[in-house]
Amino acid sequence: MKHRVVVIGAGFAGLQVVLGLKGAGCAITLIDRRNHHLFQPLLYQVATTLLATSDIAWPIRALMRERKDVTTLLAAVEGIDRAAREVVLRNGERVPYDTLVVATGARHAYFGKDQWEADAPGLKTLEDATTIRRRLLLAFERAELTGDPAERQALLTFAVIGAGPTGVELVGIIAELAHRILPAEFRRIDTRQARILLIEAGPRILPAFSDRLSAYATRALKRRGVEVMTGAPVTECSDSGIVLDGRFIPARTVIWAAGVQASRAHDWLGAEADRAGRVVVTPELTLPGDPAIFVLGDTAHVETGGRAVPGVAPAAKQQGKHAARTIRARLAGKPPPGAFRYRDMGNLATIGRNAAVIEFGRFKMTGWFAWWVWGIAHIYFLIGTRSRLFVALSWLWAFLSRQNSARLITQREAGHR
Amino acid sequence: MKHRVVVIGAGFAGLQVVLGLKGAGCAITLIDRRNHHLFQPLLYQVATTLLATSDIAWPIRALMRERKDVTTLLAAVEGIDRAAREVVLRNGERVPYDTLVVATGARHAYFGKDQWEADAPGLKTLEDATTIRRRLLLAFERAELTGDPAERQALLTFAVIGAGPTGVELVGIIAELAHRILPAEFRRIDTRQARILLIEAGPRILPAFSDRLSAYATRALKRRGVEVMTGAPVTECSDSGIVLDGRFIPARTVIWAAGVQASRAHDWLGAEADRAGRVVVTPELTLPGDPAIFVLGDTAHVETGGRAVPGVAPAAKQQGKHAARTIRARLAGKPPPGAFRYRDMGNLATIGRNAAVIEFGRFKMTGWFAWWVWGIAHIYFLIGTRSRLFVALSWLWAFLSRQNSARLITQREAGHR
Repeated sequence: MKHRVVVIGAGFAGLQVVLGLKGAGCAITLIDRRNHHLFQPLLYQVATTLLATSDIAWPIRALMRERKDVTTLLAAVEGIDRAAREVVLRNGERVPYDTLVVATGARHAYFGKDQWEADAPGLKTLEDATTIRRRLLLAFERAELTGDPAERQALLTFAVIGAGPTGVELVGIIAELAHRILPAEFRRIDTRQARILLIEAGPRILPAFSDRLSAYATRALKRRGVEVMTGAPVTECSDSGIVLDGRFIPARTVIWAAGVQASRAHDWLGAEADRAGRVVVTPELTLPGDPAIFVLGDTAHVETGGRAVPGVAPAAKQQGKHAARTIRARLAGKPPPGAFRYRDMGNLATIGRNAAVIEFGRFKMTGWFAWWVWGIAHIYFLIGTRSRLFVALSWLWAFLSRQNSARLITQREAGHR
Repeated sequence: MKHRVVVIGAGFAGLQVVLGLKGAGCAITLIDRRNHHLFQPLLYQVATTLLATSDIAWPIRALMRERKDVTTLLAAVEGIDRAAREVVLRNGERVPYDTLVVATGARHAYFGKDQWEADAPGLKTLEDATTIRRRLLLAFERAELTGDPAERQALLTFAVIGAGPTGVELVGIIAELAHRILPAEFRRIDTRQARILLIEAGPRILPAFSDRLSAYATRALKRRGVEVMTGAPVTECSDSGIVLDGRFIPARTVIWAAGVQASRAHDWLGAEADRAGRVVVTPELTLPGDPAIFVLGDTAHVETGGRAVPGVAPAAKQQGKHAARTIRARLAGKPPPGAFRYRDMGNLATIGRNAAVIEFGRFKMTGWFAWWVWGIAHIYFLIGTRSRLFVALSWLWAFLSRQNSARLITQREAGHR
């Protein structure tokens, strides 16, 4: 009988495991509760009207079309029966495994303030992105409609909490919308009067980057009309605004980009987790005491060289490859590759039209050239010629026409609130 | 003071009025409760995974960018105060008019069986389309997951009720999905065993076309694996299936393409309406007794040459142009063009890859050439170079790769039901 591999989660890590097991002769079951693999690094561009949802998401089973060794199941996992070596699905089906890979990702976290989620949505799924897109666009629409100046200013205040790459990239495009794209389209308001706030509890933005690039990003954002507020922890958050340093700022649109919490895989596994809910794994990326179970990506806490591996796409992919190599070695009776080592591929973030920061060890780059390198790198990382072509064309079109093409308010009729 | 024109509804008719008033020196307010103009003739392609939502929808205010005489409001209308000549918005604002244009379209109608809507969604908005897309794709996913053969067959039975162009076009692509695109991607089920039913109460499909084209379409659909059932009124509809001729057919996916009902504009106007809720207008397309109010498109009942003008996009556009010409003539003190005359631009419908029917008076066309003509005509009717380019590329890509690109299940996590 073939060796049965069950992979839960078709994100960067899970997908890489399946790709790495091509031709290994396993019977693979790939389980996800979504029907698509999502390219999360560009999700902020869906949230900000640059890209369409289908540009950065692919049906998982279409990706596995040629892989007759892979059965894709769209299903929610209820638990893992480690004694019986079975994954239990919500419909009651039990999927037996010889090797299990858990790579179920993370959600945004509110550090104990879960009640903030309704007023400050985060950005992890396509629905999150279309929700944020709707709120952004509705704020301008309602500002055009209201007769009350205070209400108008609150509607035109956009606060992004958290200044990692996602936060920076969000405010960059919001500023472009408010200052360059929308002004010609409104008759009663001047969208250039919008306040766009980037709020960071720590001392500087883009903390994963060097001081120099962080300072460049701050200058570039300010030039684009963004107010950068560092050392400013948010202490309150409601549908009318936020409290910062004891000061209330009326803001109708608040976006959360400040922190993540791993999925509840540690519950399923009955495993030890760190504060962010990530399962603490061995250097081989397996569950302590159960080498048949791998935990990867944002779901796992692993340290290499004394530092925790960051929750970024390249790290998840590398872990997926490593797990696949380990499984193949075991099946072939060869020595497995051993401890996972993270290769830092550097950090990239865009700030706006013709501005980005790239850091790779001592190598640093800013400005328009970094922006083009960022774009080309991301097109390379997309899956398939079609997505590459369509995203490249969308970007080129937006760049030349100064118009974003996916400015749709959907899922709720605007007049109804 | 400038002549104030208020247009409610930015569909084909309303948009055409605004375009026709370019340079007329009016102060125009364009009100819609959606932020986008939707190209409804291609909505079925969003519902069936061929196109992305943003390919066929454009932000209304972006279309009006250069028109400084137009104020666009995203707002729901609460009523019309004809005595005061004001449109009342839901937020309480009153928008005064000298000339009012009401073009608020239609919704699908269930002939008194409104309870069917939950189980047999219709296709009028982008949300309708993504709902149908989700249900279609989820049915295949659940069939792959279930162990119960009867349940599997019910999940793989797709019933489209109503065999006008929309119904025919929907089953055409569903058949292509089931028979050509999806078979290679499922491991437990054979998607070619799907039953695809096109159900029509009348004696033949595509009743607006000639007998010959209707017969061709029937043959073409059957060759593609569609079961065409005519003279078959649906008497029951639930989440487990439909009743036809006293016979119960288990079907988990039912789509309604059988009828429409005009928006409730006749309530706002206190006007006489026909059975479909359409306001009966004068030959000049104005409200009887109130020439300052035009009612256009699917909201209006108008007869030319003894026949009611059909609720199709070309008719709505022609009415919009006619109303704009009438308003311009009045402002210039010239004789208005008088009675509206509908120019029948013919009928078009696609059936599937390389099959379409086109009828223009005595001229008739079928087969692959008609299919290409249909495609080129629709690309021509889209707004803007970008949409034309992206839709053309999407179609070309789907044609060559035999893959549809927008196969996303969104808005509800699949495992949750």
